[in-house]
Amino acid sequence: MSRSTGDEAGSRRRIPEATVVRLPVYERVLSGLLRSGATTVSSEQLAELARVNAAKVRKDLSLLGSFGTRGTGYDAQFLISQIDRALGVDRDWPVAIVGIGNLGRALANSEGFNSRGFRITGLYDVSPEVIGTVVGAVTVRDLARLAEDPCPAIGVVATPQGAAQEVTDVLTRAGVRSILNFAPQVLAVGPDVMLRYVDLSIELQVMSFYQSRRYAEEGDVTRLRSVGLSPTREP
Amino acid sequence: MSRSTGDEAGSRRRIPEATVVRLPVYERVLSGLLRSGATTVSSEQLAELARVNAAKVRKDLSLLGSFGTRGTGYDAQFLISQIDRALGVDRDWPVAIVGIGNLGRALANSEGFNSRGFRITGLYDVSPEVIGTVVGAVTVRDLARLAEDPCPAIGVVATPQGAAQEVTDVLTRAGVRSILNFAPQVLAVGPDVMLRYVDLSIELQVMSFYQSRRYAEEGDVTRLRSVGLSPTREP
Repeated sequence: MSRSTGDEAGSRRRIPEATVVRLPVYERVLSGLLRSGATTVSSEQLAELARVNAAKVRKDLSLLGSFGTRGTGYDAQFLISQIDRALGVDRDWPVAIVGIGNLGRALANSEGFNSRGFRITGLYDVSPEVIGTVVGAVTVRDLARLAEDPCPAIGVVATPQGAAQEVTDVLTRAGVRSILNFAPQVLAVGPDVMLRYVDLSIELQVMSFYQSRRYAEEGDVTRLRSVGLSPTREP
Repeated sequence: MSRSTGDEAGSRRRIPEATVVRLPVYERVLSGLLRSGATTVSSEQLAELARVNAAKVRKDLSLLGSFGTRGTGYDAQFLISQIDRALGVDRDWPVAIVGIGNLGRALANSEGFNSRGFRITGLYDVSPEVIGTVVGAVTVRDLARLAEDPCPAIGVVATPQGAAQEVTDVLTRAGVRSILNFAPQVLAVGPDVMLRYVDLSIELQVMSFYQSRRYAEEGDVTRLRSVGLSPTREP
């Protein structure tokens, strides 16, 4: 895996996490536009489709060093390549998934885990019924063999809650320094390991927050106020 | 489903989305602490476990009207009930999932979709092999029958990309006004429908962003700098 120069690190340092999280959304919208035949995109169009306000889109893209042309907008293909470079997905990221239940299978088969720099190089489980089966193009191996295989850049924990810490320990002992945890379990790792959590129900809870608010507003004004319900469109 | 008063709507309006997204994380950490026997928690402890800085935790919780006691901290159980009320998960949210493949099954069986106000009331698919099977305690029904069933508060799209828009149309025609979309597809809905996206690979991309930066830093200083790698701990 190639390493960047100090210059790249410098330019990356200035991108705040709130922007980093929006970049994959822009990328998806831009890819959709390209597929539909568009070659350029305005910040208003990108904002509308990504459900972000246009000023924020322009600010985010300016952080990548990208500036649209008045009246023409942004070159969609060029913008995608800039986003990919900023996200680091112009590299090769070997990914291992541990826990090949429904979620592990869904991830292994998903587009997001098999494109744009990510490549599933290992699937692991402890169940004899699962070990040896093929998911996508990868044969599930015994978790006990993980340390024998080439070390992945990113380890994904898709096990039940009770197994998550043990699996994380296996991954970090094997040298994995980036862990993405889907199990509903707070994990302990050393200071040199980057750990991020995905909670599949967070958006469900965010939705109930806004829906509650909407019910309250409707009760208040006695009729549906359908404006401004999409949270990310609000000021 | 009960509706709130105008007062509640007023108090909810002030919570920014960035805080809303962190509340489920605090809730999970607090539940973990309760299970381990703790009854109070300091903002520093909560910050450490939620990987957010302590000042932000205090700010977020003050938005709920919750203030810790110096030297004692917050009452964990009380804080959970306040978070639940703010998120609206102290109500009953019937949820329908469409697309009972690996992802739909994983969601249907997940803790997050079966607790804290959420209740799966319908599972739908179009495949004759899947219709009639039981997942969790719910029998999968034909999507064509969805309109005959009681209308869920939230519809979850867990289909392949190509079917997502059609399924969304079926849901909204049946009266569903909140759609949570897991398919990698930008969807069109009317202005009275709240639509949110979940991209399972966003955190993978955020991770590659920070990992790239780390490689760059290491290349720069020729040895591992293990400080400040966890992005949410940075200033």
